[in-house]
Amino acid sequence: MFLTRSEYDRGVNTFSPEGRLFQVEYAIEAIKLGSTTVGVRTRDGVVLGVEKRTQSPLLESSSVEKIMEIDRHLGCAMSGLTADARTMIDHARVTSQNHAFTYDEKIKVESVTQSVCDLALRFGESVEDEGAMMSRPFGVALLIAGIDELGPQLFHTDPSGTFMRYEAKAIGSGSEAAQSELQDKYHSQMTLEEAQNLTLRVLKQVMEEKLDQHNVELAQVTVDKGFEILDEESLKAVIDRMQS
Amino acid sequence: MFLTRSEYDRGVNTFSPEGRLFQVEYAIEAIKLGSTTVGVRTRDGVVLGVEKRTQSPLLESSSVEKIMEIDRHLGCAMSGLTADARTMIDHARVTSQNHAFTYDEKIKVESVTQSVCDLALRFGESVEDEGAMMSRPFGVALLIAGIDELGPQLFHTDPSGTFMRYEAKAIGSGSEAAQSELQDKYHSQMTLEEAQNLTLRVLKQVMEEKLDQHNVELAQVTVDKGFEILDEESLKAVIDRMQS
Amino acid sequence: MFLTRSEYDRGVNTFSPEGRLFQVEYAIEAIKLGSTTVGVRTRDGVVLGVEKRTQSPLLESSSVEKIMEIDRHLGCAMSGLTADARTMIDHARVTSQNHAFTYDEKIKVESVTQSVCDLALRFGESVEDEGAMMSRPFGVALLIAGIDELGPQLFHTDPSGTFMRYEAKAIGSGSEAAQSELQDKYHSQMTLEEAQNLTLRVLKQVMEEKLDQHNVELAQVTVDKGFEILDEESLKAVIDRMQS
Amino acid sequence: MFLTRSEYDRGVNTFSPEGRLFQVEYAIEAIKLGSTTVGVRTRDGVVLGVEKRTQSPLLESSSVEKIMEIDRHLGCAMSGLTADARTMIDHARVTSQNHAFTYDEKIKVESVTQSVCDLALRFGESVEDEGAMMSRPFGVALLIAGIDELGPQLFHTDPSGTFMRYEAKAIGSGSEAAQSELQDKYHSQMTLEEAQNLTLRVLKQVMEEKLDQHNVELAQVTVDKGFEILDEESLKAVIDRMQS
Amino acid sequence: MFLTRSEYDRGVNTFSPEGRLFQVEYAIEAIKLGSTTVGVRTRDGVVLGVEKRTQSPLLESSSVEKIMEIDRHLGCAMSGLTADARTMIDHARVTSQNHAFTYDEKIKVESVTQSVCDLALRFGESVEDEGAMMSRPFGVALLIAGIDELGPQLFHTDPSGTFMRYEAKAIGSGSEAAQSELQDKYHSQMTLEEAQNLTLRVLKQVMEEKLDQHNVELAQVTVDKGFEILDEESLKAVIDRMQS
Amino acid sequence: MFLTRSEYDRGVNTFSPEGRLFQVEYAIEAIKLGSTTVGVRTRDGVVLGVEKRTQSPLLESSSVEKIMEIDRHLGCAMSGLTADARTMIDHARVTSQNHAFTYDEKIKVESVTQSVCDLALRFGESVEDEGAMMSRPFGVALLIAGIDELGPQLFHTDPSGTFMRYEAKAIGSGSEAAQSELQDKYHSQMTLEEAQNLTLRVLKQVMEEKLDQHNVELAQVTVDKGFEILDEESLKAVIDRMQS
Amino acid sequence: MFLTRSEYDRGVNTFSPEGRLFQVEYAIEAIKLGSTTVGVRTRDGVVLGVEKRTQSPLLESSSVEKIMEIDRHLGCAMSGLTADARTMIDHARVTSQNHAFTYDEKIKVESVTQSVCDLALRFGESVEDEGAMMSRPFGVALLIAGIDELGPQLFHTDPSGTFMRYEAKAIGSGSEAAQSELQDKYHSQMTLEEAQNLTLRVLKQVMEEKLDQHNVELAQVTVDKGFEILDEESLKAVIDRMQS
Repeated sequence: MFLTRSEYDRGVNTFSPEGRLFQVEYAIEAIKLGSTTVGVRTRDGVVLGVEKRTQSPLLESSSVEKIMEIDRHLGCAMSGLTADARTMIDHARVTSQNHAFTYDEKIKVESVTQSVCDLALRFGESVEDEGAMMSRPFGVALLIAGIDELGPQLFHTDPSGTFMRYEAKAIGSGSEAAQSELQDKYHSQMTLEEAQNLTLRVLKQVMEEKLDQHNVELAQVTVDKGFEILDEESLKAVIDRMQS
Repeated sequence: MFLTRSEYDRGVNTFSPEGRLFQVEYAIEAIKLGSTTVGVRTRDGVVLGVEKRTQSPLLESSSVEKIMEIDRHLGCAMSGLTADARTMIDHARVTSQNHAFTYDEKIKVESVTQSVCDLALRFGESVEDEGAMMSRPFGVALLIAGIDELGPQLFHTDPSGTFMRYEAKAIGSGSEAAQSELQDKYHSQMTLEEAQNLTLRVLKQVMEEKLDQHNVELAQVTVDKGFEILDEESLKAVIDRMQS
Repeated sequence: MFLTRSEYDRGVNTFSPEGRLFQVEYAIEAIKLGSTTVGVRTRDGVVLGVEKRTQSPLLESSSVEKIMEIDRHLGCAMSGLTADARTMIDHARVTSQNHAFTYDEKIKVESVTQSVCDLALRFGESVEDEGAMMSRPFGVALLIAGIDELGPQLFHTDPSGTFMRYEAKAIGSGSEAAQSELQDKYHSQMTLEEAQNLTLRVLKQVMEEKLDQHNVELAQVTVDKGFEILDEESLKAVIDRMQS
Repeated sequence: MFLTRSEYDRGVNTFSPEGRLFQVEYAIEAIKLGSTTVGVRTRDGVVLGVEKRTQSPLLESSSVEKIMEIDRHLGCAMSGLTADARTMIDHARVTSQNHAFTYDEKIKVESVTQSVCDLALRFGESVEDEGAMMSRPFGVALLIAGIDELGPQLFHTDPSGTFMRYEAKAIGSGSEAAQSELQDKYHSQMTLEEAQNLTLRVLKQVMEEKLDQHNVELAQVTVDKGFEILDEESLKAVIDRMQS
Repeated sequence: MFLTRSEYDRGVNTFSPEGRLFQVEYAIEAIKLGSTTVGVRTRDGVVLGVEKRTQSPLLESSSVEKIMEIDRHLGCAMSGLTADARTMIDHARVTSQNHAFTYDEKIKVESVTQSVCDLALRFGESVEDEGAMMSRPFGVALLIAGIDELGPQLFHTDPSGTFMRYEAKAIGSGSEAAQSELQDKYHSQMTLEEAQNLTLRVLKQVMEEKLDQHNVELAQVTVDKGFEILDEESLKAVIDRMQS
Repeated sequence: MFLTRSEYDRGVNTFSPEGRLFQVEYAIEAIKLGSTTVGVRTRDGVVLGVEKRTQSPLLESSSVEKIMEIDRHLGCAMSGLTADARTMIDHARVTSQNHAFTYDEKIKVESVTQSVCDLALRFGESVEDEGAMMSRPFGVALLIAGIDELGPQLFHTDPSGTFMRYEAKAIGSGSEAAQSELQDKYHSQMTLEEAQNLTLRVLKQVMEEKLDQHNVELAQVTVDKGFEILDEESLKAVIDRMQS
Repeated sequence: MFLTRSEYDRGVNTFSPEGRLFQVEYAIEAIKLGSTTVGVRTRDGVVLGVEKRTQSPLLESSSVEKIMEIDRHLGCAMSGLTADARTMIDHARVTSQNHAFTYDEKIKVESVTQSVCDLALRFGESVEDEGAMMSRPFGVALLIAGIDELGPQLFHTDPSGTFMRYEAKAIGSGSEAAQSELQDKYHSQMTLEEAQNLTLRVLKQVMEEKLDQHNVELAQVTVDKGFEILDEESLKAVIDRMQS
């Protein structure tokens, strides 16, 4: 049936006879080629963790950015095409700054997520009012973590422009095994420390290499400190604690 | 005959030799992949009900928005592509606000429906005056419920830009069975409570999971309260009453 | 020979080797899928009648608009794609209003017909001065009825942008049988009442359902009253008279 | 060899390996599907005659316009797509009015012909300065008749934008037989009456129906009266005289 | 090998693997379908001659313009698509007038030739600053004759935008035989009369009909009289002289 | 499987069913056809070295620019299409100058790298605000070397718009062997001199010709002297030292 | 493998799976169909020589321009499509004039070469700021010769937008044999006279006709006289000297 499918997916934004948008589905495949990324929400904050694949020992792993700050109270982890994610997160940052400037308040987590999804939906359009309009779907999924008046929240976005809120969510190449592990181990009363442990354990399980402070990255959003990416020292401490 | 059809549907907006617009028909197929949505009109108001498919227990079902407010006196339930629906409903909201601001009166239910259908009809155009012009048909059907001087009304829109008014209407994957159930059970003298019961019974029948307050959503428009989505508590009460 | 034809009709506006415009011919096919519509001209006025196909008993048949007013002295019945007709009739309404405003006189029936046909001819153009320029032919035929200084007139338009004046004309799925019936029964001395009877009899003959005031619609343009769509009561009276 | 030809004619304006422009040739085929049209030039004026095909006895034949006035001293008969001809003749009328307004003199017959051919040549261009630029060749041939300081003249235009002056010319489905008849019977000393007779005889010969004042139309340009279309009465007199 | 060639020539302006531009080569084929045209340069002036193919005895041969004036000191003969030539020559006329107006001197023959070739080269561009930009190569070759301070000159242009200066040159369907005849008979000491004779003899040889003053046209540029097209009388005299 | 792949890569920016962007992957192949380029970072500065392939002894090897200055503190070595690299480096230079002018400080190495990658990501867009927007991916990889407040840094960019920081990196046709040699020999305590030696040894190993001062080029960024390309004399000295 | 290649080269600017740009490679083939062109640099100046193919003895060979002046100190010889070269050299002339006007100094040879290559690189772009933007690569190679503060220089440009500096370089149909002859005979101490001799001897060797002052052209740039094309007399003297 492959040949028949190929008839429909060349137009970047065309329905197949079964009502499917293949270019969006193929973009979702691009994410399954990416590294595994995990998010876990607790009442105290949200934890994000990513696997860093370092193809070469001479690569400086700190330059592989898979977790990025959006605003003081907002961060984001990605899986898929790195350069695409940069465009989306730039958009999120500008949206967040504009909101703060216009309304003098922090943007809601759902609002910033929606603005990213509106951008994702609009690929292939002939609109000319933005410098970075894509001619194909963005090949990237995001886990957006933040805290606002509704408390800590974790959103998942995909290339179709759909977003949903999760307690805990895994994306990327190991996401199937990781998500099933999350369903087994997650409970809504977790502390932030337990969420850190769970995130690392899930990553450890899907990674081929031995997990250490160089090949994973951990970040969290908390009421006190806002968004922060753990430095290597803190990360090593968390890994040691998790493995003990 | 499939291959011959495929010759015609690549141009997003081209007639086949039989006078059909395949991309529009395929978009209608996208709706049949969506969750089931039901609307029932009574003399006292209109009831909207949707099935919520939660792929994962860690997904926060409240973040799956399939019923949305358009204005104080107007709401809408959808089936199909969530992100497409967001664009259409944003358009409806702006149209409604503009009308209220310009004429100092509430927009009619038919007028807001027509504005959404005009947007749907215009896909594939090279018009440049709107930020959200689509390069393909919208893969979404809406049930628009509202009350104006003509009383409670329920409209159905499809990707071709056609709209019609219904007493009761079902859309989405289970729509065939649901519509036939509605034809059997609906009568024009129903109370709002009976309409709630009918909506839930029809959904129950087409859902694979056991229906509860987490996997369905119910909303209504009434003269007194305008549009409202039932909170979980009220919803649970209605479900209990329906099942008793 | 079907495959060879398909070579030429993908460009929306390209001649085949035999000098044919297939997309326009296919749009004409779309009209043959539509409901039957009949118009009859008399010296006293023009009668328009349409069949209303109600796919569901829960559909409010009054929301299926197949006859629409253009101006006080002008109306129109359609067959084909409902949403396309809406665009054309909006164009006709604006043209008529503009004419009245600019010249302080009622637009001629032929002028409003020509303006609709000019719109129809221009599909596929890269002109940017209208909000509703189509990328394909309009899949709709119109019967435009009106009265001006030349008396009552009935025009027929098709997707090629051609228009002609008729004494009596049928379009849509049952048009062949209907037109031949019109040729048999029409005479130029008919009264308006006789034209109503003839219109209903022709529709009755081509409809599968039993004709009643719910599944047909009747309208007329007269010198005294201008354009009017008969309400259900009047319609029932006409039907009863016709069947007696 | 048909398949090979089809490789080249999809681009609306592309040469084939033999140096041919197929879309223009196909447009010329469209004219061969049209009704027969005849023009005859005399020293006293030019006569134009067309066959009117009335598909239905209920069609008002006077609404089938195949001969149209361009200016007081200029008229035109067409064969091919009616709606395309309307666009070309509108262009001719505007050109003629502009010339008269700017130079305070009547436009020459050749000048108005050339302006129509320049429009015909420009299909498929991305020029944006005209409201009615076509994306395909015009499927119409014109016989333009007029009188200026050079005396009565008859021009023929085709979809390639080529124009030539003729003593007598036939176009449309019966043009081959008609042209050969014209060559036999035409002589340069003809009176206007003889030209009327010749025009009608040629049409009579190629028409399937019996020729009468309802299925042909006759027009002429003379020094005294300028362009005029004969009314039914005058036409009947000419037909009677011709047949006597 | 035909099929493989066809892979490359659909883009109007694309190289084949052998470095060829097929659309330009096909346009050159269009010229080989045209009538034969000859130009001969002498020290006293340049002679241009064309064959006029009159498909019908009722065609007024004087309306078949294959030789045209560009300016007082400049003329041009064409072979290929008549309507395309009109566009090029209009361009040449405007260029020549602009030059005279701006610099108060006659444009050079080479300059006007280059301006025509620059236009020819630019087909298929998306430039929007000219009303007559073509979407395909011009299917026409020109022989441009003129006199400036460098004396009498004859230039040949082809659809690729290349131009060269010739002593004597033939283009069109009979060009091969004609050019070889020119090589045999031409010598640089010819008088203008001898050049007239040579031009007519070459045309006579390649024409199927008997050459007379109706089916050929002759023009010349001389220092005394500038560009002039010979009237029928003068032409007949030249023909008689040549044949004696 | 080749044919199936070819179905997807014609649109310059379209996902394949496996989620791949073939045009970007093919651009990466273009780099593998390029000459080998090596970069090595030390605490004292960064060394860049390239192989210069001189197809002809008459080619002036100094005109083959594969290492270029971006700013006083920034340089860059390339592999792939030379002309594409010129566009990217021009963009980097302008970005760097603008930054210095606007903020009165030197641009960071990462910032200038990101600006180049943003340009790379945007191929195939219809954005019109830059003179040099490409319709395909840039077929070039860069090693960007610079020093800022974070010390000496070496970045690698590829056609997908992805960038990463490396201790030592090789690109181009010999990159596989070169990178593995770098992994063996590189250590983070290297002096600048040792880095020069390592760079040359790696190039020597992958080059077919005997390495001398004519067929390699060496550059470095140091705190003291900023970016400098070694002249032939200095280069010869380094080569002699390396080989001793 | 030809068919597979053809899959990739229709987009004017698209990579093949091996990272190649076929349209650029095909444009390079166009140059191999052109006449042979040779350039030789000495310390005293640069010599350019071209073969002139005269298809017809009636062609005035002086109108075949293959060597052209860019500025007083800059000239250029071409091989490939003549009309394309004209566009590039016009661009070079304007660039050179603008530079002189803006900076009041002569443009450098490398700068004018780079501006021509930037133009070459930009084919297929949708940039609208230049009148002569091409929709395909330029099918021409140039040898640009000039003198600036760096002394006499000879640059070679190709359709990819790449340029390099050479001591001596041959392009066109005979370039392979010619380049190998240049490598044998060229030495950097040559006088200008020796360079003239070498240029002619290389051309003589690859030409089928006997070389004389009519079928070759010679030009040179020297400090004293700037750019000059040798007139026939001087050329004949050089040829006689070379052959003695």
